[in-house]
Amino acid sequence: MREFSFSVKATDGAARLGACHTPHGVFHTPAFMPVGTQGTVKALRHPDLEDAGAEIMLANTYHLLLRPGDELIARRGGLHQFIGWRRPILTDSGGYQVFSLAHRRVITEEGADFCSHLDGTRQLLTPERATDVQARLGSDIAMVLDECLAFPATHDDAAISMRRSVRWAARARRRMLELRGGAGSGVAVCNPGQAQFGIVQGGVFPDLRAESADSTVEIGFEGYAIGGLSVGEPNEQMYAIAQQVAGRLPPEQPRYLMGAGTPDDLVECVARGIDMFDCVMPTRNARNGQLFTSQGRVNIRNARYAEDDRPLDPACRCYTCLHHSRAYLRHLFMAGEMTAGTLNTLHNLSFYLDTMRRIRDAIAFRTFDNFRQEFLLSASRLSLDS
Amino acid sequence: MREFSFSVKATDGAARLGACHTPHGVFHTPAFMPVGTQGTVKALRHPDLEDAGAEIMLANTYHLLLRPGDELIARRGGLHQFIGWRRPILTDSGGYQVFSLAHRRVITEEGADFCSHLDGTRQLLTPERATDVQARLGSDIAMVLDECLAFPATHDDAAISMRRSVRWAARARRRMLELRGGAGSGVAVCNPGQAQFGIVQGGVFPDLRAESADSTVEIGFEGYAIGGLSVGEPNEQMYAIAQQVAGRLPPEQPRYLMGAGTPDDLVECVARGIDMFDCVMPTRNARNGQLFTSQGRVNIRNARYAEDDRPLDPACRCYTCLHHSRAYLRHLFMAGEMTAGTLNTLHNLSFYLDTMRRIRDAIAFRTFDNFRQEFLLSASRLSLDS
Repeated sequence: MREFSFSVKATDGAARLGACHTPHGVFHTPAFMPVGTQGTVKALRHPDLEDAGAEIMLANTYHLLLRPGDELIARRGGLHQFIGWRRPILTDSGGYQVFSLAHRRVITEEGADFCSHLDGTRQLLTPERATDVQARLGSDIAMVLDECLAFPATHDDAAISMRRSVRWAARARRRMLELRGGAGSGVAVCNPGQAQFGIVQGGVFPDLRAESADSTVEIGFEGYAIGGLSVGEPNEQMYAIAQQVAGRLPPEQPRYLMGAGTPDDLVECVARGIDMFDCVMPTRNARNGQLFTSQGRVNIRNARYAEDDRPLDPACRCYTCLHHSRAYLRHLFMAGEMTAGTLNTLHNLSFYLDTMRRIRDAIAFRTFDNFRQEFLLSASRLSLDS
Repeated sequence: MREFSFSVKATDGAARLGACHTPHGVFHTPAFMPVGTQGTVKALRHPDLEDAGAEIMLANTYHLLLRPGDELIARRGGLHQFIGWRRPILTDSGGYQVFSLAHRRVITEEGADFCSHLDGTRQLLTPERATDVQARLGSDIAMVLDECLAFPATHDDAAISMRRSVRWAARARRRMLELRGGAGSGVAVCNPGQAQFGIVQGGVFPDLRAESADSTVEIGFEGYAIGGLSVGEPNEQMYAIAQQVAGRLPPEQPRYLMGAGTPDDLVECVARGIDMFDCVMPTRNARNGQLFTSQGRVNIRNARYAEDDRPLDPACRCYTCLHHSRAYLRHLFMAGEMTAGTLNTLHNLSFYLDTMRRIRDAIAFRTFDNFRQEFLLSASRLSLDS
């Protein structure tokens, strides 16, 4: 079993080119992790994901815990075995979904008490349980349970919440070390090489972010995430916090900005030292007909595409763009065909993953700042619809 | 532009091995045509369909006429160009959907007057219009408009309906010959090599079936279909009518049993001289979690598969069976993931198309009767669920 390790291969300003070794192989950073909530990226088969350039997939602990259950997955040998994906997997802690999906949640020092959105069954997700569940899933990177505060929050609320998240992080880490030491009280550890990342919270308050970063680093993890951003705050605030926190984290370890973002966000946050990203935007928007192209955004419902025989994005080499026209994609979408979801998802993920590849190339050639300026000046944020 | 032609390469009893040449290449018979209603087989990309062994796709005139419209498709150069599928396409005439989907339909001698199920717009589908629409679609095989009678029907009703279908067939043929002769009054003919098949009706009444077959053959088409079966009549009656009609059709032309059926139906009707089939069963059942395997039918919802690590069908070489377990397929289905539709459809179509390949091999080796007996005695009709 290979161990988890991370190395920075090159830098260009604050942007870093790196490689993250995991028990299931390497992924290169800056990396975008497609979201495979329930063990599949919606509407895609795993090879489609690999063809699009995905080196790591994210899966959701909350969903898998409730269905089909972490014990069932552990009996299959872990999530990789169960879903048939051989590359790295990162699992979130379930915290975000407890706050966004679960019913009747009550947060105490012990953990998050909630009712399943599926069948109402009562669940208690503690830092220890989130760690155990992810040990059973056997992901390559596990996240600590944190409290996700709604935006906006007062400084006081953010401080109380952040400090509880730090205490939870310490408990999660303690549990992780117990599991590694074989003191897991019978918890199946499906991936002994699993890494654990801490999460920096603190809302939009620099003093709290600093305190959270320092306390989390003091606990000590294999990598660090920045949580609680991309939740409605202005872009510039997100970028500023990402920059501040990234600068405070150990340079030899990976930095993951959770839940971001638009293509612009990726470029801007790489420029501020972020190594890893995940976001439902490319996949969810694809299913809603919102497509990213090098020439601008496309809402494929728009009547202007009904007789448009051009590929969605002439600059894109994905299956969808090589084989189909905007007219056909619009038809499939308007007709409610599942194939529309597949073709659109393939494209949007290809656009995101191709952007990451271009980012990595630019850092390697130390031309990242040029790339960034061109990217932000390009038409990619415009709407092609009007 | 290659012409349409059909040749019988070998026979074994009444079963025929053949090849059908079309302007978009050859398909081998007996053939199963996956249903791509609106220009895609639901949940699949075209290469997935080709990988499963599909040599020809069926598309629905009714749906495409209403959305995106046959004129729009003709401006794209026809259906092949529009959807990016290079192999043969057969289009139905729209008759079946007028009877099953449309609102407020009134049948007159002129044609079928109905309101679109999409937006209520009034449409008149005449034999001539059904021919024109399919000329614009540019399919390789077009079907004449026929009246689809509900089962059961009286002998009188079946006779009246059948004779009207014959008169409609004559009008459709006349229109087709006008289009071929360039007298199409501006109708875009997207595939000059398009063939046209007549349809034998007459319900479950042998005398009417004989009359319909003789009258339809007298009009003269490139091939003949048997309509109005697989609509609720007992299997044995379907087989008997298929046998009777097949025996009355010209041996040098292809015979197509519309809308059938189960894997057993395919084998039994090949044994009676049928060359072509289409059915929504493999694709629709797949999306509902009903799977065909060599060991029996599987309802993947069943709790018994929750921890079943075996492939769906150990004898199957499809992507789904080579890469995933029943446990994962059940999880995806229960979780409502679109990927379940994709993986299940891939498998069911592979099972159908593999069955056709085995049928063709058996005819070539003159072992079809053995194959048929083994197939019917095999477990393929049992349920594995209980």
